[in-house]
Amino acid sequence: LSIAIEDESTDASLPNPRRRGAYAKTEARKSAILEAAFQIFAANGYRSGSIRDVAEIVGISEAGLLHHFPNKVALLEGVLRERDARSFLMVQPNTLHGVKFAEGLIRVAEYNETVPGIVELFCVLSAEATAPDHPAHEYFRERYRWVHEMTTTAFNEAATDGELIENANPASVARMFIALWDGLQLQWLLNRESVDIATELRSFLRGVTTPIATDRARQE
Amino acid sequence: LSIAIEDESTDASLPNPRRRGAYAKTEARKSAILEAAFQIFAANGYRSGSIRDVAEIVGISEAGLLHHFPNKVALLEGVLRERDARSFLMVQPNTLHGVKFAEGLIRVAEYNETVPGIVELFCVLSAEATAPDHPAHEYFRERYRWVHEMTTTAFNEAATDGELIENANPASVARMFIALWDGLQLQWLLNRESVDIATELRSFLRGVTTPIATDRARQE
Repeated sequence: LSIAIEDESTDASLPNPRRRGAYAKTEARKSAILEAAFQIFAANGYRSGSIRDVAEIVGISEAGLLHHFPNKVALLEGVLRERDARSFLMVQPNTLHGVKFAEGLIRVAEYNETVPGIVELFCVLSAEATAPDHPAHEYFRERYRWVHEMTTTAFNEAATDGELIENANPASVARMFIALWDGLQLQWLLNRESVDIATELRSFLRGVTTPIATDRARQE
Repeated sequence: LSIAIEDESTDASLPNPRRRGAYAKTEARKSAILEAAFQIFAANGYRSGSIRDVAEIVGISEAGLLHHFPNKVALLEGVLRERDARSFLMVQPNTLHGVKFAEGLIRVAEYNETVPGIVELFCVLSAEATAPDHPAHEYFRERYRWVHEMTTTAFNEAATDGELIENANPASVARMFIALWDGLQLQWLLNRESVDIATELRSFLRGVTTPIATDRARQE
């Protein structure tokens, strides 16, 4: 599995050292804002968290923050992109192969339970962004495209390795896995006691994989 | 399967014929408002549809509408309750048994594709209602409770009839079926070309059911 993530800090189109210095400073500031926003929205949820709170933590003015993220949706999208990048580190798609990758995604689901505010943010913003004119519409369309592509690749590997049950279509299993996860999150946000997300995802995974995959997991 | 739906029109606590007449008139008006709201939101989607448009179709003032539904969320919740009742008629839980009931739900999913505005309304409102202080929070918590209960009953029947694969837990299969449906709807709203909801639901159902269920479906 290899998915390229754009790393703007190595952008070759910025050769001027001085400009590179200013660029690095801007990136560091954006990074600090996203880190603060992640904390604020994780702790207070999507609605209670405000741009003012985030600016205060970073030690800048609201106007200073809006220079980097022109509105709340842009900031929220930034937080979700940051979360995608962190999740990406957890699943290590270049290292985890086949069913192991899906198991990595379940560990991400387990981690997410520790930051319910971020899960809520994802759930609400993705639903609102279904409107074609929503500012985060393209982000979500593109996100589901690459997440599906990455997960399909993993289930294709699983099929090749005999880990997937017969007649299971890898692209369809990937589509279902992602949809199931989103739907379980909604039920969990509405009623935390009603559902254990990771347990249901594991149950689904067990249903589409062979004893080969189960034995491998047990040996490790 | 038997789930009682409250039918307020046969409420025995209203014996006075005159009062009953006024009550019936109020119910008829509410019904007309919900029918108009269903049309408006199905055609224009959640955001573009307005209370004014709905009032205009019914031929009443906005104030007259607000007398029955005090705000937009109350009206939207009313539309979703109305949709639940219609879906209920489609799946006929008292007639459809076991896997047949789940197949009925898939026919509802197929019907829903003809009213994307209502699917969008459901998707956005359910996400926003995850906040405990949202006016539709209790409606959605209660809705997921009874939908899960009803679907679990059907999969329990399926297990008894040998339609469910071994080791499949009916309550868990029900939970997954509902979550999968919601997650697929989100992906469909973001990109209609990316996913066929009914096809994926059928694929999931095939994965958890035995040849007994498949043979029964083929014979009919």
